[in-house]
Amino acid sequence: MGTNHGQRQLHLGAFIFGVGHHIAAWRYPLTDTGGLLKLDFYKRFAQTAERGKFDLVFIEDIPVLPEPLNRAVQYTLPVRAEPLTLLSALASVTKKIGLVGTVSTTYSEPFHVARKFASLDHLSGGRAGWNAVTTSMENTAKNFGRDHHLDHSLRYERAKEFVDVVTALWDSWEEGALVIDKATGQFADPDKVHEINHVGEHFSVRGPLNVHRSKQGRPVVVQAGSSTTGQAFAAQTAEVVFTAWQTLEEAQNFYTSLKSQLPAYGRSPDELKILPGVLPFIGATEEEAKAKEAEFQNLVLPAVGLGMVQNILRVDLSGYPLDGPLPELPDATEINGGKSRYQLLLDMARREQLTIRQLIHRVTGARGHRTIAGTPVQIADQLEEWFVNKACDGFNIMPPYLPGGLDEFVDLVIPELQRRGLFRSEYTGTTLRDHLGLAEPANRFAQRSATSVH
Amino acid sequence: MGTNHGQRQLHLGAFIFGVGHHIAAWRYPLTDTGGLLKLDFYKRFAQTAERGKFDLVFIEDIPVLPEPLNRAVQYTLPVRAEPLTLLSALASVTKKIGLVGTVSTTYSEPFHVARKFASLDHLSGGRAGWNAVTTSMENTAKNFGRDHHLDHSLRYERAKEFVDVVTALWDSWEEGALVIDKATGQFADPDKVHEINHVGEHFSVRGPLNVHRSKQGRPVVVQAGSSTTGQAFAAQTAEVVFTAWQTLEEAQNFYTSLKSQLPAYGRSPDELKILPGVLPFIGATEEEAKAKEAEFQNLVLPAVGLGMVQNILRVDLSGYPLDGPLPELPDATEINGGKSRYQLLLDMARREQLTIRQLIHRVTGARGHRTIAGTPVQIADQLEEWFVNKACDGFNIMPPYLPGGLDEFVDLVIPELQRRGLFRSEYTGTTLRDHLGLAEPANRFAQRSATSVH
Repeated sequence: MGTNHGQRQLHLGAFIFGVGHHIAAWRYPLTDTGGLLKLDFYKRFAQTAERGKFDLVFIEDIPVLPEPLNRAVQYTLPVRAEPLTLLSALASVTKKIGLVGTVSTTYSEPFHVARKFASLDHLSGGRAGWNAVTTSMENTAKNFGRDHHLDHSLRYERAKEFVDVVTALWDSWEEGALVIDKATGQFADPDKVHEINHVGEHFSVRGPLNVHRSKQGRPVVVQAGSSTTGQAFAAQTAEVVFTAWQTLEEAQNFYTSLKSQLPAYGRSPDELKILPGVLPFIGATEEEAKAKEAEFQNLVLPAVGLGMVQNILRVDLSGYPLDGPLPELPDATEINGGKSRYQLLLDMARREQLTIRQLIHRVTGARGHRTIAGTPVQIADQLEEWFVNKACDGFNIMPPYLPGGLDEFVDLVIPELQRRGLFRSEYTGTTLRDHLGLAEPANRFAQRSATSVH
Repeated sequence: MGTNHGQRQLHLGAFIFGVGHHIAAWRYPLTDTGGLLKLDFYKRFAQTAERGKFDLVFIEDIPVLPEPLNRAVQYTLPVRAEPLTLLSALASVTKKIGLVGTVSTTYSEPFHVARKFASLDHLSGGRAGWNAVTTSMENTAKNFGRDHHLDHSLRYERAKEFVDVVTALWDSWEEGALVIDKATGQFADPDKVHEINHVGEHFSVRGPLNVHRSKQGRPVVVQAGSSTTGQAFAAQTAEVVFTAWQTLEEAQNFYTSLKSQLPAYGRSPDELKILPGVLPFIGATEEEAKAKEAEFQNLVLPAVGLGMVQNILRVDLSGYPLDGPLPELPDATEINGGKSRYQLLLDMARREQLTIRQLIHRVTGARGHRTIAGTPVQIADQLEEWFVNKACDGFNIMPPYLPGGLDEFVDLVIPELQRRGLFRSEYTGTTLRDHLGLAEPANRFAQRSATSVH
């Protein structure tokens, strides 16, 4: 093992979610619930991930409480720090690790988003990444002055234009625009600072940004949608894609499909890294790991698990026996948003002939992502299998509880991956682009750029 | 000195602006221009302010480059980090000092603003404050998809509703709503978590927020407008007001006027602290301080200074002699926004019979705020005079250059204020409300609160 893949190296994200990814994480005895929204808790997370030489920490977001409100508040942990606020706080207590956060394109202004990430990119020395998502929860609209949620395809149109405006604003100050000549009093070169004058269907933005270009050129653009529309969007604009797959074959198909779409946009397949999520239960033996997984499942109140499945499948399952199969459900094309997660669950239930109860267990653990319960060697085997067989470029690691879940991965699994030559033992660069092996995209306004796009 | 004002203590803010407040700060030989948008530069600022026991650091903001663009870029330092990003980074490297940032109500969504400041309030352990401003620069609209800027009175209507929504969201989780009972699986008490169901002229927001109540209850609300409309807004909702006055009498009038308006809203005058801005040039002798001020003025390119005055007065002065008086100008009531700064300049020019050149020098230094050039004792004398004579509750200190300008104030003026019994020698609390002596506002949704407002 470890020699048949040459120099290709895994890319790893450390995914912060509440006090751990498992829906019952907060009930687990070793989970530090006192750390919720406390700086020291997240600082420990980011510093541990940096000790493990992860490429990045990743923070997801939904700007609304889950539905139904009473159940979300009573039985689950629904509060979360706003990602950019948290990442900025972590920029001060880390040195190398990338800082990637989710901000929806559905309810924000491109100028604000461009500016915040550009500011984080400066303050962190070139370590920022933006996970540009569309927001699919119907009730989010009610927190933003709209009665009706945007339709799925309209959300993607808006997202595409949004990302175009944000990246144009990031390009609005060329490399080398700052002069800062104290003697003559020239601060910058106006010929290298550009209005973007964007006028589109959803936005009109003049620019330029009031933040100059950063050390890594501009923040890394990340996306998370895996539907057909989501893939086309990612192929055109994303540099990293987070995704969720249960089987090697599904993941390989997605990997091949998405990478093959890049050349149509003048991009090389290497310019986009695909990182599926993985939730690891780590044990000294396989039995210990499986027992740990079972212990978490036993902490899930039945109504909570059923609610999560119902939210994804948008169906009332209360009339069906927990130990029977799912009822017939429509195809993903007929629903508005969350399409890939919906289809993933449906496919998984059909393929493995899962009962509703079994499906609940899958969803409450990793919300549709892959769960691996095993020894550090077994986990490394499974990660290597996907990586070597071109199912991914790395993984987004989703510790089931915190802080111990990440500690175990860093102390036990990372050394095994390093021993196999699959993962770095030290950072070789300082920016997120360095870690991911991503070049700085050409600046569309640079006059001497050979690949100028505008 | 120092005994005739009992226990009343100064409140001090340390105001970050570029690499110093003077428009030519970046050209001053001792200014660290290499620190621009670098974490270490701001970290040093915040840690120095904390060493000086300041109540808070304060960051202003304008989400647009000044006009005209070419001049702003070529001759001034127009880039700046987004305030919340910067404050969050500073939360990790400070322990006690308050963190106050400007976010405009004109181009933002209340849910995002409530959530970001609530997140900062948690991560900083109760040290966040929001400077809720309206945005008056015409061209800002063009960065946010609107051709026309909102009219002054409409901006204030929107601002008032905006602050109401934000504070309601901060109240949406009552104190004690979190239960976190691992044994029973109850996370929170749904009876203490409230939809706000706001439906108004400008916003419709359901809530609740997805961040629970913080250690200081909620962030401190700060405002900066001093026009008649601005005062009425502040009297109703602000807990701190930043303002700009040149003379003791003007400042006393404003102080008396604003404080007298609080009882009409059921508030005590002590529930709002008034902090005028002061730009100090500090010297071992008065001559040295005046020479330092002159050195800065000599670094201002004439076109830059004239441009700043023209931007505030909205008039083309290029046809008038620099050593002659201002032409006749309309009253502030006839202009749209920036009214108080406009009137301040006009009053100052008339009162002191300033030439255009003299007015330029006033504006380029402190942008209309008070400048004091003198020894540490002289500066302390002048601050004490205003404080003792009820012209203010403290000051927002605007160092002309960084990092030295703040170092000097902390090393030379703060000890003098402490010696006089005017300023703390140690923090006695941990939250921004503690430092400012502000009680936690009653929660409008708390059922057992004696002062519930809804």
